[in-house]
Amino acid sequence: MTDAVDYPALFLKRGEDARLRAGHLWVFSNEIDVKRSPLSGFQPGELCAIVDSAGKAIGIGYVNPNSLIAARLVVRGLEHALDRSLVVHRLNVALGLRERLYDEPYYRLVFGESDGLPGLTIDRFGDVIVGQTTTAGMERLKDEISEAIVKVLKPAAIVWKNDASIRALEHLPDYADVGYGELPTPVVVREGGLEFECDPIGGQKTGWFYDQHANRDRLARYVAGKRVLDVCSYLGGWGLRAAAQGASEVVCVDVSGGAVDAIRRNIERNGMTDKVTAVKADAFDELKRLREERQRFDVVILDPPAFVKRKKDFAEGRIAYRRLNEMAMQILSREGILVTCSCSYHMPRAALLESVQQAARHIDRQVQVLEQLQQSPDHPVHPAIVETEYLKGFICRVLPA
Amino acid sequence: MTDAVDYPALFLKRGEDARLRAGHLWVFSNEIDVKRSPLSGFQPGELCAIVDSAGKAIGIGYVNPNSLIAARLVVRGLEHALDRSLVVHRLNVALGLRERLYDEPYYRLVFGESDGLPGLTIDRFGDVIVGQTTTAGMERLKDEISEAIVKVLKPAAIVWKNDASIRALEHLPDYADVGYGELPTPVVVREGGLEFECDPIGGQKTGWFYDQHANRDRLARYVAGKRVLDVCSYLGGWGLRAAAQGASEVVCVDVSGGAVDAIRRNIERNGMTDKVTAVKADAFDELKRLREERQRFDVVILDPPAFVKRKKDFAEGRIAYRRLNEMAMQILSREGILVTCSCSYHMPRAALLESVQQAARHIDRQVQVLEQLQQSPDHPVHPAIVETEYLKGFICRVLPA
Repeated sequence: MTDAVDYPALFLKRGEDARLRAGHLWVFSNEIDVKRSPLSGFQPGELCAIVDSAGKAIGIGYVNPNSLIAARLVVRGLEHALDRSLVVHRLNVALGLRERLYDEPYYRLVFGESDGLPGLTIDRFGDVIVGQTTTAGMERLKDEISEAIVKVLKPAAIVWKNDASIRALEHLPDYADVGYGELPTPVVVREGGLEFECDPIGGQKTGWFYDQHANRDRLARYVAGKRVLDVCSYLGGWGLRAAAQGASEVVCVDVSGGAVDAIRRNIERNGMTDKVTAVKADAFDELKRLREERQRFDVVILDPPAFVKRKKDFAEGRIAYRRLNEMAMQILSREGILVTCSCSYHMPRAALLESVQQAARHIDRQVQVLEQLQQSPDHPVHPAIVETEYLKGFICRVLPA
Repeated sequence: MTDAVDYPALFLKRGEDARLRAGHLWVFSNEIDVKRSPLSGFQPGELCAIVDSAGKAIGIGYVNPNSLIAARLVVRGLEHALDRSLVVHRLNVALGLRERLYDEPYYRLVFGESDGLPGLTIDRFGDVIVGQTTTAGMERLKDEISEAIVKVLKPAAIVWKNDASIRALEHLPDYADVGYGELPTPVVVREGGLEFECDPIGGQKTGWFYDQHANRDRLARYVAGKRVLDVCSYLGGWGLRAAAQGASEVVCVDVSGGAVDAIRRNIERNGMTDKVTAVKADAFDELKRLREERQRFDVVILDPPAFVKRKKDFAEGRIAYRRLNEMAMQILSREGILVTCSCSYHMPRAALLESVQQAARHIDRQVQVLEQLQQSPDHPVHPAIVETEYLKGFICRVLPA
């Protein structure tokens, strides 16, 4: 028995409702009472009522019988359907936060679970919207989402950047295309008074890393009048923001030729050719070369790609973080500043700090942690879902021991 | 045998040098080879060479035979004596950081271990310096420290605010007096363009909580045009900063009549009588009263005193945090902002977040964590000494479930 009438019921085993009631949104496949509601009875992405063992509905969500996370709760209770209106409402609630946070329409508008839309990411580049679905449920709702975006934001274009590797867990295909309107070329993101060309279709992730925006905002007091190295620069975000915040000289390093070309266009676009240069090189190779040349930087920024993509990569990944941080400290000037980040969910904050500390001791330095960095507030953390917190970093001063 | 010649040797047991070499600065009493160097042979606060079991000196520190932390390492190696010159050097290194961080001379200048001066805290209020020693070693060096402060900072006055309860662990007496020069009345701290009267001798801690400075700097985008409640306001720091950052109305609450009088003087001094009011009340009582009156605030700031002063207070303290946060959420307007802090070292960040989440679910709310707060960068964290990280907080948006 259930009081859920409009959606097929997904029954939980006894006690398996507790985590959902405590605020979580995920149902793992082993928590489902498959005798009462066989998973084989559901299509990937099908909507359902999630119902406890006593028959009381917790709310409405969607199912994927092929995924370890077999269902996600989207709406608590049964008063509201999971339809375009619900998405419109959630977009407006998400927009309310971002409009309070930012003066200009450049931000992550929807951060999945944390914004009540599990499996959906939406980034906003002015009137270009870049969406990403990572679950079969959200993929199935794509038309409703698209219509909701048009209604709330009246964009010029919607890009679907649906090529995240995580989609494989839900047996979803990879693609990246324009789903609505016409895409301007290049797409431009504005941050801190600067403009950056980016590429939502061919670039990394959705084209820009909004998650570091708030951290890049904090550079002024560290970089003013200083020589700065931006390692794994991608499109020059950190480096150009450092220059705009008073750095006297900035070198951006990236291993991708395409990224370096884009950095150079961004340097031109912002009139910074006198201050900022870009080098195409592997981060480790370039740090080694700079050390051998006895170059010194007052500030080194490390924002590498995730070295610990999966839990099993942890042992190897932490060694890479330690090595990278050690090499950065070796080219720091006396009492220099190290900005060090990890976007690996599987690299805990404490492990990153330990890597930094071990690196420092190995070369007889000591570290003062001045600021802890985390993802920007347009990537809110859901307090019941630890996976929503992934970006961590530190601003450190490095002293002789 | 030892290569330490000028200081009596404190020998460690075999292997007990590892933590020091990894960057830590503390020696626990059970790590000392008391056969080779009986603790009874040392005066409280006496300087020593800390020597490993093979006779190799790690560096110079000081001993307290009466304390669980029986010695602290101050200088690595034996090249530099632990004297006034060393303190002058450390003050200059500390000053270099603060002068980079701040436009005006109002900050924590020395944060103990993190600034290479274990057991010493120095706060700067313009030309008034407030020092605090928490170990017998630093107490014994007080004259050298005082001379070093005069040399480096040329202050008008030095106050010794030596009444921290932690001093009892080192069998040190409590006192608070002017150790040098003449103290202006009132002492004034400048922060964010405002002025606050404070009282380094009679007030809490050293008279001002610089550790929240950076967090108070972040209010603008949350409080502009909003009604704000500042709970456990002390001297009005959060509340007046909120008003200066655009809040339309601010109510400050503190249980101390003396604090409320000081808040009112600070409101006057900053010309904010039209916006800010102060109420003398217990935090829990006042939140209850406001709820019963159905008052609503767009932003509630919770910066209570430590509810978990000792580890054994944890169970009780976490309940207090949960209750306080729940009561705050009950008077928040829709999609309101909760700024919630804990300065209890024994209340881990994760436990505070759990308290917030439990409070939210209990009254059918959901929370988005927008920013994580920590102590300001003039209170650097020493990566090897977890005790140097104590302040944590969150800026949250609270939504209907």
